[in-house]
Amino acid sequence: MITLSPPQKLIKLKFIKVKSQAGTHSPSIETIKTLIPEIDIKIDACFLSNPFATDLVLKHFKKDFIDESRLREVLEYYPSQNEIIAQHISKAINIRPDSIFVGNGAVEIIQAVIHNFVKGKLVIILPTFSSYYEFVKEDLEVAYYTLDKQKDFALDLKDFSDFIIKEQTDSVVIINPNNPDGNYIKQGDLTSFIETHRNLKNIIIDESFIHFAIEDELMELKSVTSLVEQFENLIVIKSMSKDFGIAGIRSGFGAMHPSRVKSLLRSGYLWNSNGLSEWFFSVYSDKTFRDEYELIRKRYIHGTLEFLNSLKTIPNIKVYPSMANFALIELIDGTTAEDFVFKLLIEHGIYTRLGNDKKGLSGQFVRIASRTNEHNKEIVKAIRKIFQEASL
Amino acid sequence: MITLSPPQKLIKLKFIKVKSQAGTHSPSIETIKTLIPEIDIKIDACFLSNPFATDLVLKHFKKDFIDESRLREVLEYYPSQNEIIAQHISKAINIRPDSIFVGNGAVEIIQAVIHNFVKGKLVIILPTFSSYYEFVKEDLEVAYYTLDKQKDFALDLKDFSDFIIKEQTDSVVIINPNNPDGNYIKQGDLTSFIETHRNLKNIIIDESFIHFAIEDELMELKSVTSLVEQFENLIVIKSMSKDFGIAGIRSGFGAMHPSRVKSLLRSGYLWNSNGLSEWFFSVYSDKTFRDEYELIRKRYIHGTLEFLNSLKTIPNIKVYPSMANFALIELIDGTTAEDFVFKLLIEHGIYTRLGNDKKGLSGQFVRIASRTNEHNKEIVKAIRKIFQEASL
Repeated sequence: MITLSPPQKLIKLKFIKVKSQAGTHSPSIETIKTLIPEIDIKIDACFLSNPFATDLVLKHFKKDFIDESRLREVLEYYPSQNEIIAQHISKAINIRPDSIFVGNGAVEIIQAVIHNFVKGKLVIILPTFSSYYEFVKEDLEVAYYTLDKQKDFALDLKDFSDFIIKEQTDSVVIINPNNPDGNYIKQGDLTSFIETHRNLKNIIIDESFIHFAIEDELMELKSVTSLVEQFENLIVIKSMSKDFGIAGIRSGFGAMHPSRVKSLLRSGYLWNSNGLSEWFFSVYSDKTFRDEYELIRKRYIHGTLEFLNSLKTIPNIKVYPSMANFALIELIDGTTAEDFVFKLLIEHGIYTRLGNDKKGLSGQFVRIASRTNEHNKEIVKAIRKIFQEASL
Repeated sequence: MITLSPPQKLIKLKFIKVKSQAGTHSPSIETIKTLIPEIDIKIDACFLSNPFATDLVLKHFKKDFIDESRLREVLEYYPSQNEIIAQHISKAINIRPDSIFVGNGAVEIIQAVIHNFVKGKLVIILPTFSSYYEFVKEDLEVAYYTLDKQKDFALDLKDFSDFIIKEQTDSVVIINPNNPDGNYIKQGDLTSFIETHRNLKNIIIDESFIHFAIEDELMELKSVTSLVEQFENLIVIKSMSKDFGIAGIRSGFGAMHPSRVKSLLRSGYLWNSNGLSEWFFSVYSDKTFRDEYELIRKRYIHGTLEFLNSLKTIPNIKVYPSMANFALIELIDGTTAEDFVFKLLIEHGIYTRLGNDKKGLSGQFVRIASRTNEHNKEIVKAIRKIFQEASL
């Protein structure tokens, strides 16, 4: 069982204070660096993104902005409005541009959808990404459907359908793969679910982690985005932060019926994209870039699968099945998640995500992101080491 | 009287089509370049920003991001949340950080304020920045107070106060200096107005152009921001796009009572700042930067005053008094605003803003931004030239 030394406990308390002042969610690396200089973060395994994709985007950034007047334009001028940027995205994902709402990150789209379209009752699956319930205002009722840890947090669509019908809900959210457990619903099964529930007001599918999910060795990209042209109640939300490793740019989009896009743009979202996000989407619209990215996506998935398998060989933890770019682990030797996370952070500079503030996660849970192969190896080594030292 | 040739009329029609597809507001230079290659824009006098300030921010950008790992961090990682970035702004404007709501540009704050705080009835002064009425949803009543062009669009605060009382409004918006006419209300007069109307639910003051307004030769920065700590009904909205010339970064803030900031953050705005905006606000928090900026601000005001005076010597136009970084002109020789704008655009590559879609502007109005001294001279020269050629 891992425990903290008294000085480590003090650093932990300082961290908890910083976290409480940094808003919700984990404080940024920058914030931690400034406020807790005792902690030297070497690996950010809290952060769910493909680092190889960041390399790729950075390569394009340097190429495109070696021309300084272009850089100036991106910073100085108003970016284009939604309609224009949607045309770039349309080229990449092959749906009509007027079905695309461009967002300042996926989280703005979650906010827009919940505040503008979801009325009456919303079914949220637990555990989940907390904004789905945090953004709910008083006039909306929420019913929670809790995934069973005994069933490895797998979503049983038949049972879930029964729950929806019983609850007489208007709307439902599914994150696929789910955050924070990584469970994945196959595209075919999800399509059947959408067909069955065409009477719901809103089916919100969050595909922010879909680029990491595979159904076979071909590792093809899966998505239900194209179904928005067929099902008016379907809204697909897509972050670009994770798969492209660009959370700081704030890029995301929602695919939805054109009438919904119009309705959002009628009373807001005038210049909600920034110049760099517009630039990124123009890069994304280029087939050559997407081909480069495709190789990098597959390379990262290979590394992630290897990482998950290595974690599974550590006896003191249970690794839940994941098709996302992270592992949800449970500590099964009596170690608390806090002691585990701060031991890794303070002694090894590895920053992981505590699961104890996640609704629907009961137990000692930690979420660990997959990083580069080298970093993944260091993470596994460090975890082994802290358990070995604890058993001495 | 200026008129267009048949080929110029065709380009105009093409432009109007592009505009209708680019959303509301003027299409971006980038969009025009792509879709209407016949037009070669040399001077963007549609764009209301201080170009010298863009130079300054670019200088800091290059200095700070010569370290490539820092650039990577800004693009890759999630930016800090509102509370952290508000601390930077607090250092610069000297009010409590919990009174500051950081926005993805001022326009996000306008949207947040109108959708979350303004209920019942809102008084909007015409002409105005169109988002103030475009973002209004069905459940809000709007009463318009129209400025009189015979009085040079000056706002008579006494008459306006009477109007507010007569209308029994809950909320009121004042842009100071006003867009699109540039009229300025002195800080002392506005403070008295705020004191008088402490019973209103919301007094929204938009100070997006305040850095260009001066009250005497000292050219000191004026603002009512600090009054938010005294008046709970006061909301001050501030864009950074104009004065710092960084519209593409999307930076802005709202100063308001801490309970309002809390209320907005409770159900949204999780990561609404991007990495570059966080970086900009950290630069802004530095006194040395603000001292550098102060010189540039005054230099730009000098240039703008000179520009306004030169425009006033052209006989075919009336130049309205402005304390912003633009001139509102009216064509008084029978030329239509459209013919004037497209003549300047097609023959001289000078892009100005048509006033004909602005509610409350009746007549042939054009808004022209002040740019560099050299460009301002070219603008005046080109306007003189098109009138001279028309009179031949």
